[in-house]
Amino acid sequence: MDAQQKAIEAALNRIKNQGSRSNVNQLYNAILEGNKTALAKSITLLESSNTAHRQQAEALLNKCLPHAGNSQRIGITGVPGVGKSTFIETYGNYLTSKGHKIAVLAVDPSSQKSKGSILGDKTRMETLAQNPKAYIRPSASGDSLGGVTRKTREAIVLCEAAGYDTIIIETVGVGQSETAVKSMVDYFLLLMLAGAGDELQGIKRGIMEMADSLVITKADTGNEINAKNAEMEYRRAMHLLPPSDIKNWTPVVGSCSAMEHIGFDKIYQTQNAFFELIKRSGFYTENRQKQAKSWMFASLKDQLFDDLQQNNKVKEQLQSIEEKVVQGLITPHQGAEAIFKLYRG
Amino acid sequence: MDAQQKAIEAALNRIKNQGSRSNVNQLYNAILEGNKTALAKSITLLESSNTAHRQQAEALLNKCLPHAGNSQRIGITGVPGVGKSTFIETYGNYLTSKGHKIAVLAVDPSSQKSKGSILGDKTRMETLAQNPKAYIRPSASGDSLGGVTRKTREAIVLCEAAGYDTIIIETVGVGQSETAVKSMVDYFLLLMLAGAGDELQGIKRGIMEMADSLVITKADTGNEINAKNAEMEYRRAMHLLPPSDIKNWTPVVGSCSAMEHIGFDKIYQTQNAFFELIKRSGFYTENRQKQAKSWMFASLKDQLFDDLQQNNKVKEQLQSIEEKVVQGLITPHQGAEAIFKLYRG
Repeated sequence: MDAQQKAIEAALNRIKNQGSRSNVNQLYNAILEGNKTALAKSITLLESSNTAHRQQAEALLNKCLPHAGNSQRIGITGVPGVGKSTFIETYGNYLTSKGHKIAVLAVDPSSQKSKGSILGDKTRMETLAQNPKAYIRPSASGDSLGGVTRKTREAIVLCEAAGYDTIIIETVGVGQSETAVKSMVDYFLLLMLAGAGDELQGIKRGIMEMADSLVITKADTGNEINAKNAEMEYRRAMHLLPPSDIKNWTPVVGSCSAMEHIGFDKIYQTQNAFFELIKRSGFYTENRQKQAKSWMFASLKDQLFDDLQQNNKVKEQLQSIEEKVVQGLITPHQGAEAIFKLYRG
Repeated sequence: MDAQQKAIEAALNRIKNQGSRSNVNQLYNAILEGNKTALAKSITLLESSNTAHRQQAEALLNKCLPHAGNSQRIGITGVPGVGKSTFIETYGNYLTSKGHKIAVLAVDPSSQKSKGSILGDKTRMETLAQNPKAYIRPSASGDSLGGVTRKTREAIVLCEAAGYDTIIIETVGVGQSETAVKSMVDYFLLLMLAGAGDELQGIKRGIMEMADSLVITKADTGNEINAKNAEMEYRRAMHLLPPSDIKNWTPVVGSCSAMEHIGFDKIYQTQNAFFELIKRSGFYTENRQKQAKSWMFASLKDQLFDDLQQNNKVKEQLQSIEEKVVQGLITPHQGAEAIFKLYRG
């Protein structure tokens, strides 16, 4: 490359950087004004695997961070068929009628494979999607839960900067996504079906332990007795679990009918009581700081392990060392030492 | 150091290495003969933090590995007061009367602080300690669960090479030690008390999910009705949990009186049925290979993170980066990237 070419290259880069800088500034200003299109574009930026996009997203995140954090972050889960979308649509519209601005995000690491099993189809929440005080975003696609989780956590920052005071994170009731969602919300709501007979069958026990509250869905006319029985059964089950980590909080079991708009006042009151309690006690702030810290270390450990796996010497020998460990020729600790030495010399 | 000194040094090292090599060989031969003193010395070697000891231990482990693996590894847990020591002593003697050779190890990361809260006091299992077909080893001390876990896993190898066909790993019902024990055994037994009233209070739910079988202790004369009620209550609770990972296995709930030597036949039959099933189905081998593999990766990740924490640049800045993340000035992901760059440049 001769001097002239270099100068041209540099000029082009300057223009490109100016472009991306002004792009970041434009998006930033529009986000602060609550512009939904800018918000959507910005979230797309941070979901992109393109390096330039990623750099812009980082710059944007840094600008938005001081405006983020003042929200109620709510996780919602439940087995397929429990009526999560219908619940979120009805409760979302209820919340906006109380003056809130709500954003709905999703964590669904399977969404890439299944082409958007969750929130992919916006028609599922048609009235909420058209609500000017609501913003709905389908789950980020990604091959790893870690990737999807990072994108969702960062999307929360942008939504908060855009003035959304209630962030709902939806998750499917499978895999490890509940743990990921629990690690990014203040309040975790478990939706349950009122069925006949053995209410608790098929529920993953770990999920019940995570729930700050529980709502029986589809308590529609004709189904009230089932719902009441389910409420009692779940209250009893919750009683068998270890007490909540949150001092002075006992998980509340309620029920609702999204179809008939019944039960949402109580759900809203419970949520408010919860946030009043945790803000007063300091748990709200402490928990978020703890979440940020442990997320940093989890992310760091992932990066370390990824880097190790990229190492050529490790790549060459990993499988044969693993095989030796599996065959019992060396101990797992010896295998780990051997791999570590390949990596760090 | 002049040439003469170097020569002396080298000669000394040769003698030392010869010494350690012959030491390793002696221990190895004695272990294969089932010599308890040699076994105890060898476990002490692998618990040592001295580098020379550690090297000998590694050499010894490699020699013993081909002779290890053919045992029933049994984890036993339960809350303090459930009577774990009494149970293990009675069941241990029962097993030797059936022709087994049993080794009792323990995982208790708290034992250093509390000066041996578990198995530290051998008089707790006096008759078993004097039983020629039993070997009891107190918990390795160590500041981290990871360290204690590694030492216990390696002690299993040596005990198996010494001909012990049943390895019992005891753990206290606190912290993460159950998960560690679960990851090194084939069969996990949960001991429970028959109390009055609300049987399930105070049990960590995750532990019940890990149990392959459950035994109500202290079903002594006068307490039979309580024990029967507890059995029923637990059976119902187990029914509410998701099914076992092991195909065709349903956790068995039984009861026993160590004082009156009642119930051990059924416990033994259940254990035998379990091992027959998992050996036939292939789970026994698959599970051990899976355990070895995941232990290798866990150990590797620990080593990576330890190495990062030893890095001087990381040491200097870790706290300030962490603080920035906690204060919300940078995202957790940005914090992780910054630390990673300090480490890998």
